[in-house]
Amino acid sequence: MKELTSVSVPTVRRLPLYMAILKEIEPTTQYVSSTLISDRLNLEQIQVRKDLAGIGVTGQPAVGFNVRELIEAIEQLLGWDNMRDAILVGTGNLGQALLGYDGFARYGLNIIAAFDSNPEIIGMKIHGKPVFDIEVLSSLTERMHIQIGILAVPSKVAQQVADALIEAGIHAIWNFTPVKLNVNNNIIVEQVDLAASLAVLSSKLKAVNK
Amino acid sequence: MKELTSVSVPTVRRLPLYMAILKEIEPTTQYVSSTLISDRLNLEQIQVRKDLAGIGVTGQPAVGFNVRELIEAIEQLLGWDNMRDAILVGTGNLGQALLGYDGFARYGLNIIAAFDSNPEIIGMKIHGKPVFDIEVLSSLTERMHIQIGILAVPSKVAQQVADALIEAGIHAIWNFTPVKLNVNNNIIVEQVDLAASLAVLSSKLKAVNK
Repeated sequence: MKELTSVSVPTVRRLPLYMAILKEIEPTTQYVSSTLISDRLNLEQIQVRKDLAGIGVTGQPAVGFNVRELIEAIEQLLGWDNMRDAILVGTGNLGQALLGYDGFARYGLNIIAAFDSNPEIIGMKIHGKPVFDIEVLSSLTERMHIQIGILAVPSKVAQQVADALIEAGIHAIWNFTPVKLNVNNNIIVEQVDLAASLAVLSSKLKAVNK
Repeated sequence: MKELTSVSVPTVRRLPLYMAILKEIEPTTQYVSSTLISDRLNLEQIQVRKDLAGIGVTGQPAVGFNVRELIEAIEQLLGWDNMRDAILVGTGNLGQALLGYDGFARYGLNIIAAFDSNPEIIGMKIHGKPVFDIEVLSSLTERMHIQIGILAVPSKVAQQVADALIEAGIHAIWNFTPVKLNVNNNIIVEQVDLAASLAVLSSKLKAVNK
């Protein structure tokens, strides 16, 4: 197995795509060609070959890549072989939507609880997940050794809540706010900025409508 | 007003951030400095100055930028001055979450209806939005002159549904599937790939846990 650090971010971003195809063909197929994968995913074949080489799996000439081996390599690389617990902070519209999205389980992510500061919501369950007071964030997160925090709070308090998450022992923040968080180098931040994405879409549409 | 095409994508992605600050201070403030904006957003001041110049608004020395003027320039650039109707296809978990997220209204996006192929869901309302049969996509979309389609279908059918959207007159696809869509140059595609984002987060976390 290659060292993880040698796999580029663009390659990592494509791994879930490969995984989807591999899982689909696994029941009936032992070996797969890079051509089949590239055709199905609308990617260049050379790209697929490089990505698979990057994760440390070598194909056999005229046979292809071992499907099971590829799946295991990707799972190990992404840590999907171990389900990861996460907590979510902020149960507004977006937070509730994320709590209700059970597609994350497919990617090894298990949201076990939510936190909010609104006394009307604390103590409730949203999509089956308990909502705790943000004040107890630290004790619960540390006790349960949770490493991932999903940030879905209003922009105004995003930095402050991120600081609290880090203080509580969180190592990785999945940031659904548009805020550029100011954190130490040892903290992992990955952002999904819906507003930015929509802005790009809108501006391009505006341009063609001129 | 500058031509839209001269504004870079990274600048466009930051515009919602500027907008949030501007809307917040607008009731009490007539002029704002680039320093205040850069401090609040944790961005470099030179970055903010360049972005604001890029959208065609010039500050006055010792006075700053006119808040109202900035808001109007950004709104016009992003087309947020006119609410845009959109339709959503695919009412699985993610689709339902998106239908329930009313934060989009703030960005000028109004999801008016959803489409699905599941007869058990067709005819229902989800978060107040009617769900129609995917078979009538074309007639409804064309009749209502809808330009934006939100794609939240399973990966397997993503390309096929994208083709149907384009056939129905959609010009811009907000693609929430991980699939790389194959479309003509005149069609706008903006992707939010949650699986890819989570893969990056997971792989980095895996690396530090080694």
